[in-house]
Parts: sequence; structure tokens; C-alpha cells
Amino acid sequence: MLINTRRSRVEWCDCDPAGIIFYPRYFEFFDTSTTALFERALGMNKIAYLKHYNFAGYPMVSAQARFHLPTRFGDDIAIETKVAEHGRSSFKIEHRLMKGDALAVESFETRVWAIREPGTERLKSHPIPPEVLARLQA
Amino acid sequence: MLINTRRSRVEWCDCDPAGIIFYPRYFEFFDTSTTALFERALGMNKIAYLKHYNFAGYPMVSAQARFHLPTRFGDDIAIETKVAEHGRSSFKIEHRLMKGDALAVESFETRVWAIREPGTERLKSHPIPPEVLARLQA
Amino acid sequence: MLINTRRSRVEWCDCDPAGIIFYPRYFEFFDTSTTALFERALGMNKIAYLKHYNFAGYPMVSAQARFHLPTRFGDDIAIETKVAEHGRSSFKIEHRLMKGDALAVESFETRVWAIREPGTERLKSHPIPPEVLARLQA
Amino acid sequence: MLINTRRSRVEWCDCDPAGIIFYPRYFEFFDTSTTALFERALGMNKIAYLKHYNFAGYPMVSAQARFHLPTRFGDDIAIETKVAEHGRSSFKIEHRLMKGDALAVESFETRVWAIREPGTERLKSHPIPPEVLARLQA
Repeated sequence: MLINTRRSRVEWCDCDPAGIIFYPRYFEFFDTSTTALFERALGMNKIAYLKHYNFAGYPMVSAQARFHLPTRFGDDIAIETKVAEHGRSSFKIEHRLMKGDALAVESFETRVWAIREPGTERLKSHPIPPEVLARLQA
Repeated sequence: MLINTRRSRVEWCDCDPAGIIFYPRYFEFFDTSTTALFERALGMNKIAYLKHYNFAGYPMVSAQARFHLPTRFGDDIAIETKVAEHGRSSFKIEHRLMKGDALAVESFETRVWAIREPGTERLKSHPIPPEVLARLQA
Repeated sequence: MLINTRRSRVEWCDCDPAGIIFYPRYFEFFDTSTTALFERALGMNKIAYLKHYNFAGYPMVSAQARFHLPTRFGDDIAIETKVAEHGRSSFKIEHRLMKGDALAVESFETRVWAIREPGTERLKSHPIPPEVLARLQA
Repeated sequence: MLINTRRSRVEWCDCDPAGIIFYPRYFEFFDTSTTALFERALGMNKIAYLKHYNFAGYPMVSAQARFHLPTRFGDDIAIETKVAEHGRSSFKIEHRLMKGDALAVESFETRVWAIREPGTERLKSHPIPPEVLARLQA
């Protein structure tokens, strides 16, 4: 199972008047980490893999997060990301956001592999290409 | 049980290259709806109620959302928000985001009533003032 | 000259640890106000006018803002927006953000009317349709 | 004159339905680069320098940006940041955002050194500490 670790930093722009991170920003971080996992697994950046697989992205079906420790601007963080489970067209992603050695946030996402319905702007689900699954599970 | 409905609109700034809302934005919307519920229940704006109750805010313990229908820029939405349950210092908020008559997103938050530890920047949980609970449950 | 006024509110999610608005949020507000001006002038929402004019949007060439008064969460604001000047494919937008009777922020944008280069993802400038100009200047 | 270069990447979360960066995000990037410049000059992170100098931050008086080239998700960027000029309590920051060897965006900010008015939440300008200026100009 491929686990990708992305290192980043909580910045002033991520924080609210309470002086801690504004939690919707975590979901931005996790989205970027999901991209980083796919980029590493597939060996190309997101623009390239969207094109290569005639792929419209992986819209969210459900998202959950548990916040164990607050983070503040200046905190260095590391986010570990993996595909935890998959169906035919849906898959579950898990993120563990670490502050030093401590688990600060856990997140569980269910996403679906989507393509454009031909001739429209509409997204529809589609089986995940076996090659993609194989690389994510390598 | 007080249910507050807040009407808003998905804007271009909320959407991503797939042309639909970037889902972390929903959590921003829900946070604003939680504020709107408290403002209505307490009869004052957030700056005032933070001061009045010597209150540091309601950090998130866990957040969950289920995405049933996509929304796009230009979509008018209504978000219905209520306190669904509460403990001594924690409480659960539910949001139902409607696009016309259809339920587009549901969200479930667990938050905690927080105050500053005297003389520090640190937040700690504190029992919810009974008057606040009474007004949220009115 | 059409001037559109959009009323909004600064929210917690717009503010930073200094307790005032995080200024990049003003540019989001102004972008939404530019959309609101076009929607009112053209009598259709942005998805519709992008499609109707085979239009890819109005990327920014330059943006400037002067911040006269701070705003905080809970502040009601009104943003007055107009096209101040135009060339063949570029145009200048002015925004005045009012807090009550006081001018809090002024902004000056130069944008360009853009279309997709046929068969590509690239944007290129294009003369503003005369009908659009006429409606913006009505 | 100290010039700090910060390397970053445009992500999906920074882009809008046109598939390019949503320009207000550039102002977030520049704010983070201003912080990075101060952190490097002062040898401590922002939480520490706010405390050390009894400092409330550097609110923006005016901001300007010129957008020469678009950026898209996946683009690696470098932002060069310096203090270009200063008065008693105000200072000008310049940012040059490079995409490879090309200048993609330039930005010019005027900010003011601010402190809290004793006993209040209000910000007021204050002379920049000479030590801070010396380090920024090193």
C-alpha cells in the first residue's frame, strides 16, 4: 500500500481570529495531499493525469475529520495519505496529519472516479482504471 | 428546537477547475451558518457574544459531511442549522444544505465551548452556559 | 453608467488572527461584485453568459486596492461596482466598499475579455462584444 | 537589501473554473512571503516576532499586482520578496513571482507597523523598530 507523506506548514492565511487554524483549511490541505498521492503513484502531475485517463477528477461523496490537537501559524506539519479501501468506482482515502510525533487530525474521505458525460458538462462515476488501482496499492 | 435558515449563493470563487464547488468551501458555509444560529439565538453578533460570555469560540472536535448533489457558481442555496444534541461542554450541530427542494449536502459537527486559560493563549473546554443552551433549544 | 451595489457581510471565515479581515478576501468580494455587475447588465447568471458569448471569463491584468478602514467579522458592507473605462478588449472596473457611510476600501481592476483558442485550453483576448459594452454603460 | 525567495506550487485548491489560478490567491501567497521575509530577517517565526516586538502585525494600506502570465495547478513557482522602501512606520514590499525564468506576477504592497492601543482591540501605527529595519536591509 503506497503511503505518501507531504510536508507543509500552517500559515497566517490559514488561521482565524481565535489564532488557530480555521478548520476548513484542513480539507484544502487534504485535497492537496490526495493529489500528491495520485501524482506520486501515477508519475505525472494532475493536469497530465486528468488528460491521460480522460478523467474529470474525484468528487467527494463523504468527508470526515477528527481534530485531536489544534495547530497554529508557524506549525510544521506532515500529512500521511493512502487509499484505504476501494470499490468499482469509489475509493476511501485516509489522511493522518502529524505535528511532530503527535497525531493532530485524522480524515476519512470517500471519493468517486468521475468522467464527463460525452457532450455535456455533467460528471458521472466510472470504474477506476485497474492500472491506477495497481499503482495506488503498490 | 431553534432551526435557523441562511440563504446564500455559490460563487465563482467557491468553485474549482472541475466547474463545481470546491468542497472545503462547504465547511466555510457551515461555519458561517453556525455563527448565524448563535447570533439569532443570543440576539447579538459574534463579536458581542464572544465578549459577553467571555467566550473564545467553539473549536471543532469532529466534522462530517455527505455530498448528495453537486452545486455550481450561480446556485442559490439555503442552509438549515440546528443544535441536535449537547453534553456539558460539547454540542452537535446539524446542517442541511438545500438546492431548491433537494438536499444537496448534510453535515454533522461536534464542537466544544471554549474559553482562554487565564493569562495564556490556550483554549480549554468549559460548560456551556445554561442560558445559551436554553436559547438554542427554544 | 450602470453601478451595481451588492450587500454582504464580513464573516469569521474572512478574518485572520489580528481579528480583522484578511485582505485577500477583499479581492474575492470584488470578483463576486464584478460577476454581479455583469449578471445584472446582461440579465443572466455567469454560467449562462459564459456560454451565451462563447466567453472564457475576464482574467485580471492588474489589480489595485487602497484600504482606508479595517473591517471585522459581523460588519455589514456594501460594494458599489462599475466599469470605469474600456478599450477594445480590456476594461477597468472600480469598486467602492462602504461600511455604513464610510469608504473602507477602493479597488481598481484592469481585466481582459478572453476566449479559448479553438481546440486548446489556452485563453486569448478578444474584442468585447458591443452589446455587452452597451449594457454595461446603460 | 535582504531578498528572500520562497518556493511553492500552485495547487488545485488555488484554481477556479477557468482552470487557472484564482488571482486573490496570489495575495495569500504574497502575504506568506512577507512573513517568510520577516522570519528570515528576524530569525524567529511570526508568533515569536509578534510577541517579541509587542507587535500586532502589518496591516495593508495599499496593494497592487500586475499579472503577466497565468499559472495553473501543478506549476512550480518562486516568489522573491524584499522591502523596497520605508518611512517611519510604513514600508513597501515588492514581490516577484517567477514561473521558471519568466516573471509571472509583480506585486507592490504598502504596509504599516501596527501595535494594539493599550487596553483595546484597536490597531494603531507605530514606528518600525530600528533593529527590524536594520535586519531587513542587511
